[in-house]
Amino acid sequence: MKYPPKHHQDNDINHMIDVIKTYPLATIISVKDNQPLITHLPLIYKNEKLIGHIDIYNPQAKLLKNNKDVTIIFTGPECYISPSIYSTKQLPTWNYIKVHLKGNVKGIDNKAALKQSLITMTEFLEAPNHKYVLEPDNPRLDANLNYIEMFEITITNWEGKFKLSQDKKPSDTKAAHEELERANQESIKLFLDKVF
Amino acid sequence: MKYPPKHHQDNDINHMIDVIKTYPLATIISVKDNQPLITHLPLIYKNEKLIGHIDIYNPQAKLLKNNKDVTIIFTGPECYISPSIYSTKQLPTWNYIKVHLKGNVKGIDNKAALKQSLITMTEFLEAPNHKYVLEPDNPRLDANLNYIEMFEITITNWEGKFKLSQDKKPSDTKAAHEELERANQESIKLFLDKVF
Repeated sequence: MKYPPKHHQDNDINHMIDVIKTYPLATIISVKDNQPLITHLPLIYKNEKLIGHIDIYNPQAKLLKNNKDVTIIFTGPECYISPSIYSTKQLPTWNYIKVHLKGNVKGIDNKAALKQSLITMTEFLEAPNHKYVLEPDNPRLDANLNYIEMFEITITNWEGKFKLSQDKKPSDTKAAHEELERANQESIKLFLDKVF
Repeated sequence: MKYPPKHHQDNDINHMIDVIKTYPLATIISVKDNQPLITHLPLIYKNEKLIGHIDIYNPQAKLLKNNKDVTIIFTGPECYISPSIYSTKQLPTWNYIKVHLKGNVKGIDNKAALKQSLITMTEFLEAPNHKYVLEPDNPRLDANLNYIEMFEITITNWEGKFKLSQDKKPSDTKAAHEELERANQESIKLFLDKVF
């Protein structure tokens, strides 16, 4: 197979789980009548499944149940790689880390389970410092339960896209690693001050 | 319409173009027989169109021509927002900036145009310092032209998803802005050292 290049595929499931746990905001894609519906939601990985919660008014909510197919993308860091960072001659490229999953999804229609799941997700996301705890008696939590649907995705296919200049010589791969760090830290402040 | 909430939609086309120009790595979604095909590629915005280049061996290349439909996501910064950053009582949430586009795509089967487009894209991505210039007589460039297809997307629908705690009081919106900056700078080093 000529595509995708093998040196950009990482089949180490632990690397993929690291991406999911570090970058939990998933892009969730359902397809109906050949039209994609797309929502961005944090998903929590547990026992080879992914758990999420969706606004009942989101049109995609109807597709996140009844064992329907779903495609999920988790997005790690990415940046343009200028050939100027290398010691060897190369063409420009883009490096990124993405995990693509396929799965089927079932709705979990149980308010107590939903409530516990929101508390558990918050615990996970607040780790390790736990500056906030979502208490079971929080009145805002109870008020929201009727407007959220919980779902669970069984993963049927894993694909780790780690495009990180692994095919270059070690010092150039290291330069690409450093560039990925630098580029991501620089871009954000400038951009945010402009639009937000 | 109860979804998506209006305060999270930004219809200012200039804000969306800022996202595209700052974060050019697009997630390109085609659908065939109700199955999504997904590729991550930088796209360059020019005159209300998007220009890209794809590996001819990528199975999605066949779908990026003949006026086929395509859905595109551009991804800005994102992070978990702990209620602990606010001065008011809130539930946990996730903030993010995404631009969703729909369009139709035509292939441009012209090696000279492809070559110039790769040079132009590199100029754009190397701005403002231009530490690298892709020269027209670069032998690696010529060697690659037969393995790349160029395409142009005409945008038919724009949707700016700017979920940034805009519905909170001004000091809390500011706290969310600062958290988005902080979270993105912290996460990357730790993660990259683990998997790459």
